[in-house]
Amino acid sequence: MIVELKNTVAEKRANEIAQELKAICIHYERKYTLITPSATKELDAKFQSEADRVTVLNDDMQLSSRAWKNETRTIDINGVKIGGTTNNTLLIAGPCSIESEEQIEQSAALLKELNITTLRAGAFKPRTSPYTFQGMGLDGLKLLAKMRDKYGFNIITEVRDATQVEDIIEYADIIQIGAKSMYDHGILRRCGKTTKPVLLKRGFGTTLQEFLQCAEFILSGGNPNVILCERGLRTFETKTRFTLDLCGAAWMKQYSNLPIILDPSHAIGYAYGVPDLARACTAMGVDGLLIEVHPNPKVAKSDASQQLNHDEFRTLANSLKAVAGAIGRKII
Amino acid sequence: MIVELKNTVAEKRANEIAQELKAICIHYERKYTLITPSATKELDAKFQSEADRVTVLNDDMQLSSRAWKNETRTIDINGVKIGGTTNNTLLIAGPCSIESEEQIEQSAALLKELNITTLRAGAFKPRTSPYTFQGMGLDGLKLLAKMRDKYGFNIITEVRDATQVEDIIEYADIIQIGAKSMYDHGILRRCGKTTKPVLLKRGFGTTLQEFLQCAEFILSGGNPNVILCERGLRTFETKTRFTLDLCGAAWMKQYSNLPIILDPSHAIGYAYGVPDLARACTAMGVDGLLIEVHPNPKVAKSDASQQLNHDEFRTLANSLKAVAGAIGRKII
Amino acid sequence: MIVELKNTVAEKRANEIAQELKAICIHYERKYTLITPSATKELDAKFQSEADRVTVLNDDMQLSSRAWKNETRTIDINGVKIGGTTNNTLLIAGPCSIESEEQIEQSAALLKELNITTLRAGAFKPRTSPYTFQGMGLDGLKLLAKMRDKYGFNIITEVRDATQVEDIIEYADIIQIGAKSMYDHGILRRCGKTTKPVLLKRGFGTTLQEFLQCAEFILSGGNPNVILCERGLRTFETKTRFTLDLCGAAWMKQYSNLPIILDPSHAIGYAYGVPDLARACTAMGVDGLLIEVHPNPKVAKSDASQQLNHDEFRTLANSLKAVAGAIGRKII
Amino acid sequence: MIVELKNTVAEKRANEIAQELKAICIHYERKYTLITPSATKELDAKFQSEADRVTVLNDDMQLSSRAWKNETRTIDINGVKIGGTTNNTLLIAGPCSIESEEQIEQSAALLKELNITTLRAGAFKPRTSPYTFQGMGLDGLKLLAKMRDKYGFNIITEVRDATQVEDIIEYADIIQIGAKSMYDHGILRRCGKTTKPVLLKRGFGTTLQEFLQCAEFILSGGNPNVILCERGLRTFETKTRFTLDLCGAAWMKQYSNLPIILDPSHAIGYAYGVPDLARACTAMGVDGLLIEVHPNPKVAKSDASQQLNHDEFRTLANSLKAVAGAIGRKII
Repeated sequence: MIVELKNTVAEKRANEIAQELKAICIHYERKYTLITPSATKELDAKFQSEADRVTVLNDDMQLSSRAWKNETRTIDINGVKIGGTTNNTLLIAGPCSIESEEQIEQSAALLKELNITTLRAGAFKPRTSPYTFQGMGLDGLKLLAKMRDKYGFNIITEVRDATQVEDIIEYADIIQIGAKSMYDHGILRRCGKTTKPVLLKRGFGTTLQEFLQCAEFILSGGNPNVILCERGLRTFETKTRFTLDLCGAAWMKQYSNLPIILDPSHAIGYAYGVPDLARACTAMGVDGLLIEVHPNPKVAKSDASQQLNHDEFRTLANSLKAVAGAIGRKII
Repeated sequence: MIVELKNTVAEKRANEIAQELKAICIHYERKYTLITPSATKELDAKFQSEADRVTVLNDDMQLSSRAWKNETRTIDINGVKIGGTTNNTLLIAGPCSIESEEQIEQSAALLKELNITTLRAGAFKPRTSPYTFQGMGLDGLKLLAKMRDKYGFNIITEVRDATQVEDIIEYADIIQIGAKSMYDHGILRRCGKTTKPVLLKRGFGTTLQEFLQCAEFILSGGNPNVILCERGLRTFETKTRFTLDLCGAAWMKQYSNLPIILDPSHAIGYAYGVPDLARACTAMGVDGLLIEVHPNPKVAKSDASQQLNHDEFRTLANSLKAVAGAIGRKII
Repeated sequence: MIVELKNTVAEKRANEIAQELKAICIHYERKYTLITPSATKELDAKFQSEADRVTVLNDDMQLSSRAWKNETRTIDINGVKIGGTTNNTLLIAGPCSIESEEQIEQSAALLKELNITTLRAGAFKPRTSPYTFQGMGLDGLKLLAKMRDKYGFNIITEVRDATQVEDIIEYADIIQIGAKSMYDHGILRRCGKTTKPVLLKRGFGTTLQEFLQCAEFILSGGNPNVILCERGLRTFETKTRFTLDLCGAAWMKQYSNLPIILDPSHAIGYAYGVPDLARACTAMGVDGLLIEVHPNPKVAKSDASQQLNHDEFRTLANSLKAVAGAIGRKII
Repeated sequence: MIVELKNTVAEKRANEIAQELKAICIHYERKYTLITPSATKELDAKFQSEADRVTVLNDDMQLSSRAWKNETRTIDINGVKIGGTTNNTLLIAGPCSIESEEQIEQSAALLKELNITTLRAGAFKPRTSPYTFQGMGLDGLKLLAKMRDKYGFNIITEVRDATQVEDIIEYADIIQIGAKSMYDHGILRRCGKTTKPVLLKRGFGTTLQEFLQCAEFILSGGNPNVILCERGLRTFETKTRFTLDLCGAAWMKQYSNLPIILDPSHAIGYAYGVPDLARACTAMGVDGLLIEVHPNPKVAKSDASQQLNHDEFRTLANSLKAVAGAIGRKII
């Protein structure tokens, strides 16, 4: 149950009510708002006069639900806006990992050429083996920051575990929580205390319900700027790396008020399919795409098979504009 | 291994060679063609002079592979063509089940209004419970035939098991093998002996490799007109009925020479998501879509939750044209 | 809802009531019993006086449920009994396929030596490729019948599709419906009209609910002798062929009145794990096991990797007795 | 590739060689051992004279593989030993969460009564919702420590994220890394620097290959005491919470040198099935079991449905001894 208190209710009083209701108290849109466990279905009469609006919910997908707020949230990333009534589809691109200054500079130049505003690249890589490239770490973050300063990009990069979350919050414009870290309470709770936008990737073994409840950890921590990212489920099919869940994306569009970004590159894991899938994702009418592109995919230190080369990406970026246009949206 | 014999080799000789190679012999494009187990990697020298072309394959996805024939097959359904160089996207629509003459007539009128040429509807339903509606059976087929005669549609309907395969072959223009019947050797082998187009739906628990090998049962039986249909996998996610596998569709486009049709209605199982998914499927650049539409979904005797009503479908059909146009294809 | 009519109600009247209730009517334990869709929750007052017992059910798992009949059904296979209060664990063994008289004779001799009463082997194989061994067909069935006559075994063999169902019913003592044929209405409906025991294997992509509802097709056809077989689910894990679902077996033991047989050989797909898994299955306290054993697994024409050789099987059979004994059961 | 250097090679030289080979260097059984990426298949001739043994491996499952060390590792938990040649099956039991001193004291008394040496209970709970009980945190750890001091138990408890890893290492005798934290590099890397035993639970969406590679992060950090725990996969079947993967357990027994513990309680998620499953797990011949038991499951603050009550647990513990005995093992 979500109880929005009247804006005349002060912080101290809000916290008192919260304690009595075993609720979490956040300050959102100039009001104190209390979130109780969803099992609570009624507000005690004695608090009625202090409440503006009470929303009873079926389950613990609360702040993220359209049942509470029907419009998609607007997320403002240093002036670049998605969600709300913008009809913008944010194209985020860049290599899997930062490998060197030369490499990330080439990626940045490509984005600049194509008027793309958001650069992605990983510094702390959640690799599956300890015996392979683990990312450039803090040095990588600093190279990203250099690109931001030089080109004016927004930067998105991944926090691998709670030990680097402060660094990522410092350097990134959008904090990416990866699929394998999605349940990490150390990260989720810390991200609830900033207001920087957080792109939360769905775990490949995670139900939609659990995914949205992870978003609730951030939202109920006080950060309203959460973006959902679907990047493929692990299924029995192994010809492709994962199975992109567009049915799930449709469900999130229907039931959640959070913007949605899709990641076809990690889903299929092979460059041959990325253009068709990226066009499909665009036609879904979601708020953005994450595409991996590398100056020379064959020598990439991670995800070599799925990154597009620069020419492939140029062609794709053009065709995405046409698809977006056909459904009344704009690639930014 | 596929051995295409010279067109001077007669049937009797072709069969002799087939027997020696433990191969299946079909007549395709005016030549006898032998398909051995893929474990056979070399043609004995003594047959070399009789062979036109020998294609060694990695696995038993043989006749359906681009490794053998690189171009997508053209399928001609009484003059309506898909695949090859057509750039056509065939929009197939209709109700889940034939329920009455009045109902199927309403569906037919809608299709006629929208210039749609292919009507789908089920007569023998593979229901999961014996205690619910099982379909109209042969009476349903006759109603479909009536619509064909009246409106000039092509008719597609499902064969449930080997006991009705003769009826379906007689009445349908495209024989649909459903997801639950996909491994049915009685159906597959019989469909190999006709040349009517067969739409083979992928089982929801079926790998791409197995799916293509089921298509091989039909192709190696002598019927070259097989269309693949992806309709959703069964995964751990149950907010939607199934998980549409567009990564799998991308793989099939890359590795198979068979046309591909996608079925977003059965995949998600809920009408709210069908329009977005149908646009995504169209943007994938595949050869067709199957959409369920019903004059009054609420009272439908099967799949009530996923069928669009007529107004929703009209709006969708229009937007699909725009998306198809954006990628250089045409809805037919 | 299941309505058991008084045993004074005659067939004609039973059918009249059935028609009015849109119910299926079977004759079971000397009474007419009607099964309505589970959506029906109340028996009209006018029929109350003719009903002995009315059981309202949550879903279409009806005749198979403990909610209706709490005790496990006893299945009598020519005098060999499982289920009920027997505490018997039936060990069924034999090769994947009948390959020759010599081979099946060797298998039969092994079973005889170990006092095993039930021989399994396949004649019509549901192979995934048309280019490999498809089974010996009717000739194989005749070899099985020869072994039965010679050794007094019960024979279990698989029906692949509706085109051989008559042959299998004629030759088999237990009709096996394989995982890929589990939804085959042609087979299910025909098996409802015999009273021979039917071993129904769960499809690898089939939920427990659907599985039990397939059993309902046979039970509601009038055959009370259905045995459930769990043989592994298809999951994302591919180091083993399938994932044996013992949690599902526990659920079936709790909620269904049908005996349960487990098939560890097909589940793991590799001989190394079969003994440990077979002991685990025995310790579950189920009604039987299916184990593949072959005189020379390396040259087997199908499932070569998972069949035990004769020595491995002898050792296993002994250890199964000890495990069964530890939980108060007996291997037969 | 694993290169075991001669015991005459000193640390400094070992590190030099490691650097040149891009290898990780650990000190194990009185020798320096280098682990290169598995892609490296040959040791340069110039190092041959310093190497004792070189093991080339197929993939990055290296230190955990039987291909390197064929015998199961012995893990000594303050004198309680599993693995190796012990034939011990360690029964670990206790409530899901520590809820109060009274509750954990009752659990402890039950274990004492049954001569069970290892108490499990969670303090930092990785809950799926922010609006429900999150565990007692550090206060819970202190209660566990009190039970250890009073009864002489070994204590196992879960680290939720990298922010409490120091506390858990301080208080626990076995550090449990939960299924949702399995990929957490912050935890894995820190656990590599202690020598306390680590029980690593397999993620419910994690392949065996990935699971073992996560174990490699700990092993290659220098901690040889890793125990694998299978606790159920997430599959399409939702009648039970997860699907216990005993085929996977069989694979781990065959290919890994790490001891294996199974967790039937979390796998099925319902108390009714835990006894049968626990007996099945015991019959697999693994090194231990984790069972949830609570003084009053109905009021448990987490996992209420799956915890046994004390009487159910007493009965179970007895029957496990019989099953273990039947396969030559001993419950400790």
